[in-house]
Amino acid sequence: MKHFIVFFIFLTSQASAQLPKLYNHISNDVHLIHSQVLNQDRQVYIHVPQLDSADINKALPVLYLLDGENHFHILSAYIEYLSHWHVIPPIIVAGIINVDRVKDLTPTNSLINFDGKVDSNYKTSGGNEQFFDFIHQELMPYMEANYKTSPVKIFAGHSFGGITVINCMLMHPDMFDAYIAISPSLWFGNKYVLRLAEQKLPGVSLTDKKFFYSNGNEDGSFRDDLLRFDKLVTRDSLKTFEHEYKYYPSEDHMTEPIPAYYDALRFIYKNWADTSTKK
Amino acid sequence: MKHFIVFFIFLTSQASAQLPKLYNHISNDVHLIHSQVLNQDRQVYIHVPQLDSADINKALPVLYLLDGENHFHILSAYIEYLSHWHVIPPIIVAGIINVDRVKDLTPTNSLINFDGKVDSNYKTSGGNEQFFDFIHQELMPYMEANYKTSPVKIFAGHSFGGITVINCMLMHPDMFDAYIAISPSLWFGNKYVLRLAEQKLPGVSLTDKKFFYSNGNEDGSFRDDLLRFDKLVTRDSLKTFEHEYKYYPSEDHMTEPIPAYYDALRFIYKNWADTSTKK
Repeated sequence: MKHFIVFFIFLTSQASAQLPKLYNHISNDVHLIHSQVLNQDRQVYIHVPQLDSADINKALPVLYLLDGENHFHILSAYIEYLSHWHVIPPIIVAGIINVDRVKDLTPTNSLINFDGKVDSNYKTSGGNEQFFDFIHQELMPYMEANYKTSPVKIFAGHSFGGITVINCMLMHPDMFDAYIAISPSLWFGNKYVLRLAEQKLPGVSLTDKKFFYSNGNEDGSFRDDLLRFDKLVTRDSLKTFEHEYKYYPSEDHMTEPIPAYYDALRFIYKNWADTSTKK
Repeated sequence: MKHFIVFFIFLTSQASAQLPKLYNHISNDVHLIHSQVLNQDRQVYIHVPQLDSADINKALPVLYLLDGENHFHILSAYIEYLSHWHVIPPIIVAGIINVDRVKDLTPTNSLINFDGKVDSNYKTSGGNEQFFDFIHQELMPYMEANYKTSPVKIFAGHSFGGITVINCMLMHPDMFDAYIAISPSLWFGNKYVLRLAEQKLPGVSLTDKKFFYSNGNEDGSFRDDLLRFDKLVTRDSLKTFEHEYKYYPSEDHMTEPIPAYYDALRFIYKNWADTSTKK
């Protein structure tokens, strides 16, 4: 944490002062962070919502988003809009861009792909723990050093990103306050995360955490696996662990994140009331 | 059209070459167009999706969006994402920024507000026709001159923007190919647009047009008015006029545009198949 080197590219524009208020801060800041843990440079897209004057000194939650290149803009647009209308608080989005997606976003090494075949593209799989170290030891401190962050952290991912989020929740339940797993690829690694959930969920302390998970109309075992997982969560959850499972029968694997990320934000902040600003 | 003066501000960044592919063109281009029709400068946010190499010379539809300052980013993010995954084609978004919203986005002069009271803020109301002239005579030619546009045009608005869209569809059915009216304020002007629909819908030619309209869980007569309107559309529509009405009971007036704009895009392109690029 103390030793990593940071570069950042701040996208600026001489014309930005002429933008009307709401979109001043749809700032596609692209930060380049050298990770010692991963021994590579990592790009992170960072979005900071435009703040009302009443909120200007407020510390903000951070949503750590996997597959940043895919979902960053939708999440940023939702948060910008919903916080502007005081439906949720302003939240910083840190969208992590993939380098070796199969490595970072899988919980165990397995060469078996979705079709049940040995796949050499999967040879680097199993890097979740190292990737969590990067987030915990390097990215979180970076966000805290460079932005006015509150302690509240959200972890969000889709597909392989979804199993990564659940794996993190089970192995490191204190790392985040809320977890969003959209269409988690529970089939991966002979249902590794599903088996881990069977083993870990009864004992893991998730008091006051929030957890949203969902799937669409997908091939293979996505839905059956998530229904099995849902039974485990429902059986093992304490009353203080809030969770919501949503199924989107009219969405496929790639369109489902659009409604699901919206519903996830609404779920996490359903009891939130804006106390700092007037409507 | 020939005489209007155009300024434009192109937001550039020296770092943009380092952005990964998908978001190269989340370009918040802010154009300033001097309108002779309106005798004022108008800001328009323009988003051009990132194109696959197979699409690079393709002419693109244009979605003309009202209340650009509010909904531009969500629409742009949806289009960027859905076109990247070949669910809809790439579409240019032109988000018109308000100057006098009550003037431009109302079909008739009426001083009576939502609560039934005389409201001096409404004294400029009734500027729809002049605003349509601006779009038709100035903005559309501007888009055609500056971008590679196809003839397909979509008109989208929310609330006052919703009645503006319906008024345009009834009075100028050929101006657009698809109309999106989210929570139209049909109450306005003693239900002016509802009465206009009763009068015009039986005779208006909407062959091959597409029309999406919706509302949320709102106060006042929003839902009753839209149900009345839906009856008119259903009764009068020709088989070749495709329309969809959606109701969002768990959304309020300001959150409803998030799911509704997504569903509207999916509706308009539900039979679209990507013929130009491989998945």
